[in-house]
Amino acid sequence: MLKLFIGNKNYSSWSMRAGVLIRQAGIACEEVVVRFDSFAAGSNFRQTMAAISPTGKVPVLMDCGVGNGLVVWDTLAIAEYLAEKFPEKALWPRDWAARAQARGICAEMHSGFTGLRSHCPMNIEASLPETGQLVWRDQPAVRADVERIVGMWCDLLRTGSGPMLFGEFSIADAYFAPVVMRLKTYALPVPAEVSAYMARVCTLPGVQAWVEGALSEKDFLDFEEPYRLQR
Amino acid sequence: MLKLFIGNKNYSSWSMRAGVLIRQAGIACEEVVVRFDSFAAGSNFRQTMAAISPTGKVPVLMDCGVGNGLVVWDTLAIAEYLAEKFPEKALWPRDWAARAQARGICAEMHSGFTGLRSHCPMNIEASLPETGQLVWRDQPAVRADVERIVGMWCDLLRTGSGPMLFGEFSIADAYFAPVVMRLKTYALPVPAEVSAYMARVCTLPGVQAWVEGALSEKDFLDFEEPYRLQR
Ligand SMILES: N[C@@H](CCC(=O)N[C@@H](CS)C(=O)NCC(=O)O)C(=O)O
Ligand SMILES: N[C@@H](CCC(=O)N[C@@H](CS)C(=O)NCC(=O)O)C(=O)O
Repeated sequence: MLKLFIGNKNYSSWSMRAGVLIRQAGIACEEVVVRFDSFAAGSNFRQTMAAISPTGKVPVLMDCGVGNGLVVWDTLAIAEYLAEKFPEKALWPRDWAARAQARGICAEMHSGFTGLRSHCPMNIEASLPETGQLVWRDQPAVRADVERIVGMWCDLLRTGSGPMLFGEFSIADAYFAPVVMRLKTYALPVPAEVSAYMARVCTLPGVQAWVEGALSEKDFLDFEEPYRLQR
Repeated sequence: MLKLFIGNKNYSSWSMRAGVLIRQAGIACEEVVVRFDSFAAGSNFRQTMAAISPTGKVPVLMDCGVGNGLVVWDTLAIAEYLAEKFPEKALWPRDWAARAQARGICAEMHSGFTGLRSHCPMNIEASLPETGQLVWRDQPAVRADVERIVGMWCDLLRTGSGPMLFGEFSIADAYFAPVVMRLKTYALPVPAEVSAYMARVCTLPGVQAWVEGALSEKDFLDFEEPYRLQR
């Protein structure tokens, strides 16, 4: 039996990647939400997660069928683990070259896009188009990140068969789903092709289920809300 | 035929991961060094690499035998690509649970340890123990990163069969080889078990070859040298 430990669906972008992947791929898995209270050492979140994984962060996948429960932490390792465990689901593209490319963009996401990630934190239920305009005007790093993302998506959508980045849904789409959320919340300017891809991502059942969960949480956490005083 | 594009061996930690992996695993591969001049848009380095890969960074692996030359960028994607291409070399541990763990620590490295990475940039030929003492005294993020790394290594070395993190050499050792270089350059305090592992890493032929290459470069690049005016 698989268990996925996640943080708040509204705020936790890394949790979203793993959660969307599992749900959209139709993998049976229990979801355990560990709500954020704070990331300070004594917080409930930190204490709970530190007891489960060496980094104390979400997401964490537990495979209860392996030994005394195998703990897989860090989103990319979770994705590779699931891809190996469920080869029939082709979580990575089946084509050799496409798979290398998909891993490339996921590794880029895993280590980069820090401009977008820091200035436009994920906040699914919020609508902050004016903040987005200010960020766009003042933050060249955000513009550079969006430029790379738009370029990457357009290339893949033009050369591939669509509707997703590598044809059918893959880990790559799950990896960029939180970026779709950010582009929407902050209403950052993107070309029509990209809007169309974003709309397709939003109608994936795995994404819809995640967004519904996020909207129903109704938490407001100051440390995740650099731009608002209340909901 | 495989080609690996790398930056300066002395400074480029991401290049080192891929380079050590390939050499230590005995994979036939041509090495193309693109020396750093600067990372500004018009620099020779940026122009050369932008013509090869979408991110313009090193390392890049080119597999000339696939289509018109398949370009694989981002270190973790390169590692996964090689692991798939050469299954007989077991670049990841063969054991299921160990493989998940190895991927976890590599993903952690890929996205994290920013304290250590920013305050102790790799500089193989330099010896900066006093800088290391100041950094250690003043930078809690560096202490936290080293604490996590020491904890991780000690756990693996105690539960595993050694001499490397997962028994035989694997991608995980290549991924942490630049950390070994940093711990040495800045002489950061580590327990004896860790020093012993570091010494074993330094005697791997793949690491030795890389270090020799680094020492023979004799470049001095201001933007990679926050702590020195000259060699
Ligand atoms: N590289 C990690 C990043 C995980 C991460 O940073 N998770 C955040 C929530 S989105 C977290 O748990 N933060 C808690 C903390 O930093 O203490 C992964 O991909 O899993
Ligand atoms: N996530 C990338 C990072 C690569 C990277 O940052 N490489 C550095 C050299 S160590 C680089 O090419 N920098 C050039 C630049 O930033 O323009 C990877 O793992 O390959």
